Amino acid sequence: MPHINLPERPGIRALFQFRPETAKPLTVLAETLLRAPSSLSRGERELIAAFVSSRNECRYCTGSHSAYAAAQLPDGPDLVAAVKADLETAPISPKLRSLLAIAGQTQQGGRSVTSEAVAAARAHGATDVEIHDTVLIAAAFCMYNRYVDGLATLPLDDEAGYAAMAPHIVEHGYVGVR
Amino acid sequence: MPHINLPERPGIRALFQFRPETAKPLTVLAETLLRAPSSLSRGERELIAAFVSSRNECRYCTGSHSAYAAAQLPDGPDLVAAVKADLETAPISPKLRSLLAIAGQTQQGGRSVTSEAVAAARAHGATDVEIHDTVLIAAAFCMYNRYVDGLATLPLDDEAGYAAMAPHIVEHGYVGVR
Repeated sequence: MPHINLPERPGIRALFQFRPETAKPLTVLAETLLRAPSSLSRGERELIAAFVSSRNECRYCTGSHSAYAAAQLPDGPDLVAAVKADLETAPISPKLRSLLAIAGQTQQGGRSVTSEAVAAARAHGATDVEIHDTVLIAAAFCMYNRYVDGLATLPLDDEAGYAAMAPHIVEHGYVGVR
Repeated sequence: MPHINLPERPGIRALFQFRPETAKPLTVLAETLLRAPSSLSRGERELIAAFVSSRNECRYCTGSHSAYAAAQLPDGPDLVAAVKADLETAPISPKLRSLLAIAGQTQQGGRSVTSEAVAAARAHGATDVEIHDTVLIAAAFCMYNRYVDGLATLPLDDEAGYAAMAPHIVEHGYVGVR
């Protein structure tokens, strides 16, 4: 049961409806981080979001962003599952693996990000902007995850529920999600 | 030394200048959370930000938001120092203490927030919106702190540097900070 009296909606959507004043900047931020023009694809950015949410054990955010990543990556569902299960062996590029490693360090804490991990990402071709965006996306999901679980919102029952939300996000994005 | 090649500015200001595309939604979010109309005063909300930043050991965010809290609370600097040193004995209202306890749980992780802490806040007069806003502010500083330290930005040397930034924030707010 949620900690406060919320509309009967899953996850962050209950919070967006409860407090539209804060929903607006939160959805604009998500749109900017996950969908604005970038050399990281939308699928790759959703994968970072899903990976961090999984490390934070946030069921709603893991389910939803895994579905959004899967919908926008080749071999989507299998790839997303592999990354969450074991980053070291997942079939992704060395560059994306090194960025996800930085995201994992950011999830632990800002001071946990190492120069070695940043150097490895750069050696695999990551730019400063890509390293920046990876840290910020990972940090942002440490916010969204805490927001969703800190108020004990309700997750969906199964993966199909998250998959059903994906086409709308893929087509229309986050701004206006309620 | 920062992990990426940043303008020579302290803390998050270097990141705002490096990436104006993300600076905009991040400053609008801070303005909404910390300064928009609310039954929690601006000083109280900055105190939550400073408290969480302190728990995350983020020097720049602790220094800056402690200064902004001190500038907007009676007995400012002493009160902020007391809250960071020991929440249990700090001379604040039972309601604010119970909200800060929820912020501290949120800093640990979304799933760490307990029904007991929420019930205690409610018993001390906190509304659902105040509980919501406390969790969201605490969650947001788990983002800002990770962003600032995850890219290894530079803190200021002493408290006077942070205090010098406070009058502009108190008067003009966060939107447009670069």
